[in-house]
Amino acid sequence: MAATYRRVALIGLGLIASSMAHALRWKGLAGEIVGTARSAETRAVAAELGFCDRICETAAEAVQGADLVVLCVPVGAMATIAAEIAPHLAPGATLTDVGSVKQAVIEAVAPHVPEGVHFIPGHPLAGTEHSGPRSGFATLFVNRWWLLTPMPGADAAATARLRGLLEGIGAHVDEMEPGHHDLVLAVTSHTPHLIAYTMVGVADHLRRVTKSEIIKYSAAGFRDFTRIAASDPTMWRDVFLTNREATLDILGRFTEELFVLQRAIRMGDGPQLFEYFTRTRAIRRGIIEAGQDTAAPDFGRGAPAAEAGE
Amino acid sequence: MAATYRRVALIGLGLIASSMAHALRWKGLAGEIVGTARSAETRAVAAELGFCDRICETAAEAVQGADLVVLCVPVGAMATIAAEIAPHLAPGATLTDVGSVKQAVIEAVAPHVPEGVHFIPGHPLAGTEHSGPRSGFATLFVNRWWLLTPMPGADAAATARLRGLLEGIGAHVDEMEPGHHDLVLAVTSHTPHLIAYTMVGVADHLRRVTKSEIIKYSAAGFRDFTRIAASDPTMWRDVFLTNREATLDILGRFTEELFVLQRAIRMGDGPQLFEYFTRTRAIRRGIIEAGQDTAAPDFGRGAPAAEAGE
Repeated sequence: MAATYRRVALIGLGLIASSMAHALRWKGLAGEIVGTARSAETRAVAAELGFCDRICETAAEAVQGADLVVLCVPVGAMATIAAEIAPHLAPGATLTDVGSVKQAVIEAVAPHVPEGVHFIPGHPLAGTEHSGPRSGFATLFVNRWWLLTPMPGADAAATARLRGLLEGIGAHVDEMEPGHHDLVLAVTSHTPHLIAYTMVGVADHLRRVTKSEIIKYSAAGFRDFTRIAASDPTMWRDVFLTNREATLDILGRFTEELFVLQRAIRMGDGPQLFEYFTRTRAIRRGIIEAGQDTAAPDFGRGAPAAEAGE
Repeated sequence: MAATYRRVALIGLGLIASSMAHALRWKGLAGEIVGTARSAETRAVAAELGFCDRICETAAEAVQGADLVVLCVPVGAMATIAAEIAPHLAPGATLTDVGSVKQAVIEAVAPHVPEGVHFIPGHPLAGTEHSGPRSGFATLFVNRWWLLTPMPGADAAATARLRGLLEGIGAHVDEMEPGHHDLVLAVTSHTPHLIAYTMVGVADHLRRVTKSEIIKYSAAGFRDFTRIAASDPTMWRDVFLTNREATLDILGRFTEELFVLQRAIRMGDGPQLFEYFTRTRAIRRGIIEAGQDTAAPDFGRGAPAAEAGE
C-alpha cells in the first residue's frame, strides 16, 4: 500500500501512539513517522524501541512539515499541546486526536487550530490495561472501531484521506456527532470503568477478607473487573472530569437500577431477578452476532498453557 | 491414572457436570460415569453426546451403587434433590455439590444425609457464560480453584479421596469455613455479577442511545460486563437469594464507595480520582503475579483471527 501521508507526527508516545507507529510501519502507510513525548524517559524508550523514524524533544519541532499530526496525550493535556503546536502546523495539514471524550477535546483544541489546517477529532475504541511506549503492538486496531467526529464544514477530502489511513491499519471507521459520541461512550466505556474501579476499591478496603484471598480466588468475575480497573489513571481521571455530565447521568440510572435489584434480593423476589438476568443474557447474544467478541466456551478462562499461546 | 471412584453419579447435566464427565473420562478417574437430569431434553442431549456411560431417568436411580455423588443443580434445587436421593445413597459413599453458595447448601442438604455417607460441600471457581450439557469441556477446571467446606468432624480419608479426584482433573483444592467462603465469593464473584447485570440492564433501558450502537461499540469495557451478565439466570437467581446477607453487605459498601467517586467527578476532584485509580491498578498486578490471569498485552482484544485460534 502506498504511503497515505508524507510525514506523520505522533504527539505523546503511549499505548495508542506506539501501536499506531507499529501499525503504520507494518502497512507502509507513512513516509516518515516522527514522535515526541513530554517525558525524557518516554522519548528514550521510544528511541530504543525504534518504532519512530525520528524522535523530537518538543511537540513544536515534531509537527513541522507533517501532513498528519495525531494528538495522543490525555484529554486534560490537549489544550496546552494545541496552543504549543498551533504556530508550527503546516498549511493543509490534518490534525486529529485519540481522546476518549470528544466535546471537551474540541473545546480545548479547536480555538487554536489555524486557518487551512483540518481538525478532525477521533477516538479509537481499542486499548488494553497497559500503558506507555512499550505496550504498543501493530494489530491493536484490527477489527476495532475508530470514531471520527468531524466539525461542521469539515473538508471532505481531508476526512476521506484520514479515514483511508485508519482503515489501512485495520480499523472500521464511523462518523458521529461529538455529543452523541460522549453519551454512547459513557454507557459502553466510561461508566463500566468507574464501576470496575469502585468494585476493586471495595475489595481493597475489606479487612475481614484478606487481600490475598481475593486475589487468589479472583477468577470468578472479579478478575475481569481488575483488568478494566488497571487502565491508565491519568487518562481515566481526565475522561471523568471532561465527560462529567454524561457519566453522572448514566451513573444515576445505574444506581437506581442497582437499588431495584438490591431490593429484590432483600425481599427474596426470585421471579424479578430471573426475568432481569434472562433479559441481559439476550444482549450478550447481540454482541457476539455483531462480531465484537467470541463465543468460544473457554475464552479467556482456559488453561494457562492455552493462554500463554495466544 | 487409576480410577479414584468405582461409580460417579452426576445429578444435573449442565456446564459443570458435563465438564466433569469429559474431564473424568479424559483422565480415566471414574470406573463408570452415571448421569441424570430433570429435563428429558437435557438427558437426550447428554445421551447423544455420550459423555456419560449411562443416563438414568431419576436421581434416585442414578445414585444407586455410586461411591461418589455430585449435586450439580442450582442451589435452590438442592433440598428437593437431597430428599429424593437420601434413601438410595450407598453406605460409605461421598456426597458433594458444586453450588456457588455453601451455607445455604449445607442447610438444604445436610439434614437429609444418612449416617455413614460423607457429605463434603464443594465449589469449583470455574465456569463460562454458557450453560447446558453442550457447553462442557474437559479442561474447564485446569488451574482453577475448587473450594471444599467440609463439616466439623468430616472423614479425613473421604475428603482426601475427593481432593485427589479434583486435583486429578486439574483443579487446585483449598478448604475453608462455609461462612467465610460465602463472604469471599460475595466479593470476588456474586457482587461483580450483580453489578454487571445492572450495567447491562441500564444500557438496555436507554432509549436515547440505540441498542445497536451500544452493541456495535461495546468493545471498550461494556463487552466484558455483557459476558459476565450472560451467565445462567437460574443459577444466579439462586445465588443472590441464598447468599443474601453477604451480597447485601458488599453491595452497601460498593454503593458508598461509588458515591464517593461520583461526588469527586461532580466536584471535579482530579487528585482524588487519580489516587483511587492508581491504587486499583496495583491490585491487578497482584492477580497477575498470583497466576490467575495473563498480562499479555492484547489478551482478549486481539484480532478476530487470533481469537478464533484460541
